[in-house]
Amino acid sequence: MGKKALAEFIGTFWLVLGGCGSAVLSAAFPDVGIGLLGVALAFGLTVLTMAYSIGHVSGCHLNPAVTVGLWAGGRFPAREIPTYIAAQVVGAIVAAYVLYFIASGQPGYALTPNGLAVNGVGDLSPGGYSMGAGVVTEIVMTAMFLMIIMGSTHSRAPAGFAPIAIGLGLTLIHLISIPVTNTSVNPARSTGPAIVVGGLALQQLWIFWLAPIVGGVLGGIVYKTLSPEAAAAEPDIEGRKATA
Amino acid sequence: MGKKALAEFIGTFWLVLGGCGSAVLSAAFPDVGIGLLGVALAFGLTVLTMAYSIGHVSGCHLNPAVTVGLWAGGRFPAREIPTYIAAQVVGAIVAAYVLYFIASGQPGYALTPNGLAVNGVGDLSPGGYSMGAGVVTEIVMTAMFLMIIMGSTHSRAPAGFAPIAIGLGLTLIHLISIPVTNTSVNPARSTGPAIVVGGLALQQLWIFWLAPIVGGVLGGIVYKTLSPEAAAAEPDIEGRKATA
Amino acid sequence: MGKKALAEFIGTFWLVLGGCGSAVLSAAFPDVGIGLLGVALAFGLTVLTMAYSIGHVSGCHLNPAVTVGLWAGGRFPAREIPTYIAAQVVGAIVAAYVLYFIASGQPGYALTPNGLAVNGVGDLSPGGYSMGAGVVTEIVMTAMFLMIIMGSTHSRAPAGFAPIAIGLGLTLIHLISIPVTNTSVNPARSTGPAIVVGGLALQQLWIFWLAPIVGGVLGGIVYKTLSPEAAAAEPDIEGRKATA
Amino acid sequence: MGKKALAEFIGTFWLVLGGCGSAVLSAAFPDVGIGLLGVALAFGLTVLTMAYSIGHVSGCHLNPAVTVGLWAGGRFPAREIPTYIAAQVVGAIVAAYVLYFIASGQPGYALTPNGLAVNGVGDLSPGGYSMGAGVVTEIVMTAMFLMIIMGSTHSRAPAGFAPIAIGLGLTLIHLISIPVTNTSVNPARSTGPAIVVGGLALQQLWIFWLAPIVGGVLGGIVYKTLSPEAAAAEPDIEGRKATA
Repeated sequence: MGKKALAEFIGTFWLVLGGCGSAVLSAAFPDVGIGLLGVALAFGLTVLTMAYSIGHVSGCHLNPAVTVGLWAGGRFPAREIPTYIAAQVVGAIVAAYVLYFIASGQPGYALTPNGLAVNGVGDLSPGGYSMGAGVVTEIVMTAMFLMIIMGSTHSRAPAGFAPIAIGLGLTLIHLISIPVTNTSVNPARSTGPAIVVGGLALQQLWIFWLAPIVGGVLGGIVYKTLSPEAAAAEPDIEGRKATA
Repeated sequence: MGKKALAEFIGTFWLVLGGCGSAVLSAAFPDVGIGLLGVALAFGLTVLTMAYSIGHVSGCHLNPAVTVGLWAGGRFPAREIPTYIAAQVVGAIVAAYVLYFIASGQPGYALTPNGLAVNGVGDLSPGGYSMGAGVVTEIVMTAMFLMIIMGSTHSRAPAGFAPIAIGLGLTLIHLISIPVTNTSVNPARSTGPAIVVGGLALQQLWIFWLAPIVGGVLGGIVYKTLSPEAAAAEPDIEGRKATA
Repeated sequence: MGKKALAEFIGTFWLVLGGCGSAVLSAAFPDVGIGLLGVALAFGLTVLTMAYSIGHVSGCHLNPAVTVGLWAGGRFPAREIPTYIAAQVVGAIVAAYVLYFIASGQPGYALTPNGLAVNGVGDLSPGGYSMGAGVVTEIVMTAMFLMIIMGSTHSRAPAGFAPIAIGLGLTLIHLISIPVTNTSVNPARSTGPAIVVGGLALQQLWIFWLAPIVGGVLGGIVYKTLSPEAAAAEPDIEGRKATA
Repeated sequence: MGKKALAEFIGTFWLVLGGCGSAVLSAAFPDVGIGLLGVALAFGLTVLTMAYSIGHVSGCHLNPAVTVGLWAGGRFPAREIPTYIAAQVVGAIVAAYVLYFIASGQPGYALTPNGLAVNGVGDLSPGGYSMGAGVVTEIVMTAMFLMIIMGSTHSRAPAGFAPIAIGLGLTLIHLISIPVTNTSVNPARSTGPAIVVGGLALQQLWIFWLAPIVGGVLGGIVYKTLSPEAAAAEPDIEGRKATA
């Protein structure tokens, strides 16, 4: 269990440092900034790279909504959920502090209430979207994310490609929804920056625990109905689910 | 059949929500918008992700022109065409309404005749292209799309890579042709937004049923001539064609 | 031989229509244009998609410099070179005319001496680069392209990934060198637009036959020295080299 | 040994020519420049393409920090380190001179102290970041790069995908950190341009040897602790580790 937790810690650290880091440091760099497209790619590539690196250790969830969604889909044991989520949240918080240290190395840097790529609705939504739009977006996006994860790691899907599908799936989700909520679909990713920034981001944090987990459970259940695993495949947690 | 239809419904829902959603919500976001490049990537990634997720359930067509083109190419049974197309169209329409709900969560949002990323020529073409240019573009692009699908799922192509070829093929098609017709190559994708927006988009909708299906049939037939499947491979609809 | 030639015709048609098409139609679209990054991606994806589609038919060269370079590297029989090159050039010319038809469907379109994404140096170089810079660029880029092709289709490289390496390799080459020569590394790709546009592009066309072929031969020979194929692997032209 | 050194020379030549070349020639091209996103993609694709091409020859390190990090992680013999590093540095220097030749083919080109995409902190940092921020960034990024390399080439990771994970991992690292140090994580890549440009870049060069190597060793050791290779897999340097 220790190695799995360490893997989830490192992987979620990378997701937040890479995803939020590209947003904070590079998105709006004068003239040649990477924009939301670059940020979307960065978030996806954190997952793609870690899935190939630590997938065989912990399954590379990096996301409480994925962990809970895989449990709802019958792919992950309930008893491991607390350890996974704890490791993910701690990794995200450490990443947010490292990112804050790097960002503050630029002369004139000031931490604002919407700094460090926090998630939010209303005043904290990049495009000013309402809470209703934000909640629906987070639920639908996370549900589809679990569909992609459950499907691409299914025993009948081609082996080895799941990290590409899942990583680029997260890129796609960001391409759609950064303007709405700055895209969470991941309570740990929301928690890290919110802890460092505080204020409104921290007050809205419950939304980004509730909506992604609801979506994740929905996606897990729907996919399980659509294409249940053959019984024989179930026990192979280490191998087949390694890239989840 | 129920599970195949559900898979096609969910997949086409994702194609329209993700593709048109990225166009509506993110393409022209101030300063850091994803542009047509981001939209092209989003459309392609909806197909890539769904092909790995539900490919083994329904073959992941998500597109009436693909369904009909695969039939013309000898890869899909005629009796399943109506169910597939119905599921695709319903999925696209539901996605268009969900996208409309999210988009209207931004203060000041108004639905315009070219809203929700509808397809069109002339006044509805993003670059003002003529109907002739639009029709030729849609036919050629869909024909080449079927070439890519037929080829990458061929028994002699390397296994497992078809979703990458097909998804990024759709990205390529959008990189070329968004300015001309906003890129359809998919009657269901055109139908969803046109139903919600109405007006000129609905009047031109027949073009985006006719041209893609003509192109799809052409592509299916040409590829079949170029490289027919070995007879032995034909019956294996579930497995080999799963990623079509 | 007929099917191989048809495959090379279709594939090179797609390379020029997709690559030059994205440059002409989408690169500088107001506000949301795909830029040189989008064009680079489009060129690469034409090759990636065709390599998975027709790789098992003809090897998917789509490029006289590749055909000659593979011959120099000991991977392609001399007797097939003329047919391949003829099919490639005809496909490129047809594509240039189709692109011209589509582009001229936009009100106010006018064909200029640097239209249809022609290649060139000096006055025809996008960045005004000298002939010396252009020739060196084309030789080095094509030599490295052949290194990628020879290596990723080598019997000791992982099977099935060559289209990704080769396609994204062409994307990389465009990311570097569009400003210098508009990037050729492919005499057929240069010939199509030059025939339609005429003028200076046609006068400079010899550069884009000479430099890429010199580079291709160089790359083929260097790679052959670096890592010759095991003799046993040589006869398998159909299978192993299918994705070249 | 001669072939391995030649492969490392060519590969590192390509990394510097492609990565720094795209930055110098294309990043800020008027109106349609590829920006930092294009540069990030180019750096990653140099590694992806070479890993598929020469991975089976030398393992495709292209980077002294990778060579030393793999040694620290128990994957590379100490006795080959000097040859690898020498070949990498020479390849990088030759590439910087070739790039300088091409760039100076544009009328009005002048070599400035921050030219040729040199790495730096403070006055040489693209965003003016401090040395503290730069050093931490380089250490963390290189450590995570080694995690990706060690993990994706692990005997339990899916075979053949490592070049994708590693190449796109380098893209991700650039998406995050170009504004801070212009992204090194590779002492050879820093050395080439610094030799040609001289001045401040040369004075700061020691940072980009020290920090990436410290990070590489850290990453190698952490990953080895997290997931040691099975003993039986160790001797297979040629095959399994070929894509490192």
